[in-house]
Amino acid sequence: MMNWTELNEQAKAWIKEAGENIKRSFNKTLVIQTKTNANDLVTDIDKGTEQFFIKKIKAKYPHHKILGEEGFGDDVDNMNGIVWIIDPIDGTTNFIHQQRNFAISIGIYEDGIGKIGLIYDVVHNELYHSLKGNGVYLNDLQLLPLAEVAVSEAIIGMNATWVTKNKRIDPSILSPLVSDARGTRSYGSAALEMAYIAAGRLDAYITLRLAPWDIAAGIIIVEELGGVATNLRGEPLNLLEKNTIFISKPGLHKEILAKYLKNGKW
Amino acid sequence: MMNWTELNEQAKAWIKEAGENIKRSFNKTLVIQTKTNANDLVTDIDKGTEQFFIKKIKAKYPHHKILGEEGFGDDVDNMNGIVWIIDPIDGTTNFIHQQRNFAISIGIYEDGIGKIGLIYDVVHNELYHSLKGNGVYLNDLQLLPLAEVAVSEAIIGMNATWVTKNKRIDPSILSPLVSDARGTRSYGSAALEMAYIAAGRLDAYITLRLAPWDIAAGIIIVEELGGVATNLRGEPLNLLEKNTIFISKPGLHKEILAKYLKNGKW
Repeated sequence: MMNWTELNEQAKAWIKEAGENIKRSFNKTLVIQTKTNANDLVTDIDKGTEQFFIKKIKAKYPHHKILGEEGFGDDVDNMNGIVWIIDPIDGTTNFIHQQRNFAISIGIYEDGIGKIGLIYDVVHNELYHSLKGNGVYLNDLQLLPLAEVAVSEAIIGMNATWVTKNKRIDPSILSPLVSDARGTRSYGSAALEMAYIAAGRLDAYITLRLAPWDIAAGIIIVEELGGVATNLRGEPLNLLEKNTIFISKPGLHKEILAKYLKNGKW
Repeated sequence: MMNWTELNEQAKAWIKEAGENIKRSFNKTLVIQTKTNANDLVTDIDKGTEQFFIKKIKAKYPHHKILGEEGFGDDVDNMNGIVWIIDPIDGTTNFIHQQRNFAISIGIYEDGIGKIGLIYDVVHNELYHSLKGNGVYLNDLQLLPLAEVAVSEAIIGMNATWVTKNKRIDPSILSPLVSDARGTRSYGSAALEMAYIAAGRLDAYITLRLAPWDIAAGIIIVEELGGVATNLRGEPLNLLEKNTIFISKPGLHKEILAKYLKNGKW
């Protein structure tokens, strides 16, 4: 039988080690002050980081399955057994432009149930971590359960794209929410925006199309604090395909769904 | 005659001291875990910080004028002489919701010419500082002159509000820019978004109505690196009234003005 506490400690140690490797990689490149090969660079680091995890996991936990963004893991077509869902760098545009505000995201599921969620903001050295049933921590600080908040008091993580003509949603659906909320922010990393909900920096996060590895850890972390993670119809998220994403504090989730999303077509 | 190097060192020392005071203030409040009096709290800290600067400046430089957001400074109706323009907390909503992503902003002008720009990201301990003609520094690291970039490669700091029905600008003017840019971000602090342009994390920043204290330091810092700071018509910013704001890397400024803003009505 799986020792989840031990697995959690192991996963945290690996994510920290991977973060150190990434910091070393781009320290080198910052010294040479070039952004001309930024895309190649991020691709190399993305791939290298995923392979780092796969090698470690396969050696120690050979029966675990791995679903990773870069495709070096297994062909995962169901959630049976223990499945690691890994995004080696969430927020690659930020990585290239800012050398910050990206994260490593790892969700570990057992038969489809989220057990361990890890989101590591490498540059700010903030590790958000949760072992199901044991709360959520930002480094060593335990985070509080999420309190209810009204739209008028809420800061929503949402990109301007979704209230501009786009391929995924009629901009008139979310525009009233932008007007009614206290404010909106956009950080360019789904994993971090979900972590910010956990930490109380955002109250909700809405986006139109994400892959499982963008959200696998965030769902576990937000739900552990009483938050709600669904698609824009309020339905459960599917970890084997792309989804629309609506993550929120409780109460606020119901209000936004009823007032803004219920009649939407997309 | 003013010794600008000495004034710069003095202003940097005061802004650091003010930052320490702010961190101490909200460490206390975080311990008691309440957000119910958040607005009162930020008002107290805002006022206290402005008064800290006024007391220091008046004692050491009694002939300098002070224009501050909280109104404890002088009635400044012209830019003659040496004028300090101070925002004790830029990004108050972030201060309340996030306890981070706010800044102290100080611009010092002589007869209307920007001489010293200081933006202090208190929580991340990042001080952006410039003495005109001597470059821009992020802490001890000198920042590079801003390179030209095309819209298709650019990350624009812009809030979703401006492409949503609002009182200040027809949302259809900026929507095509959101579509054409590589991406948009929104951080909720004008001073920090201008500092991020200096650091290369953003390529441009657009917003519709800011007061002099929001931008006084950022203008000096961005211009020192070859960036361009104007209103949305491409005209110089007026430090005695509110302005629309369009800050950008060179080249990109011309492209956005010609393609997106030139025919706008607001």
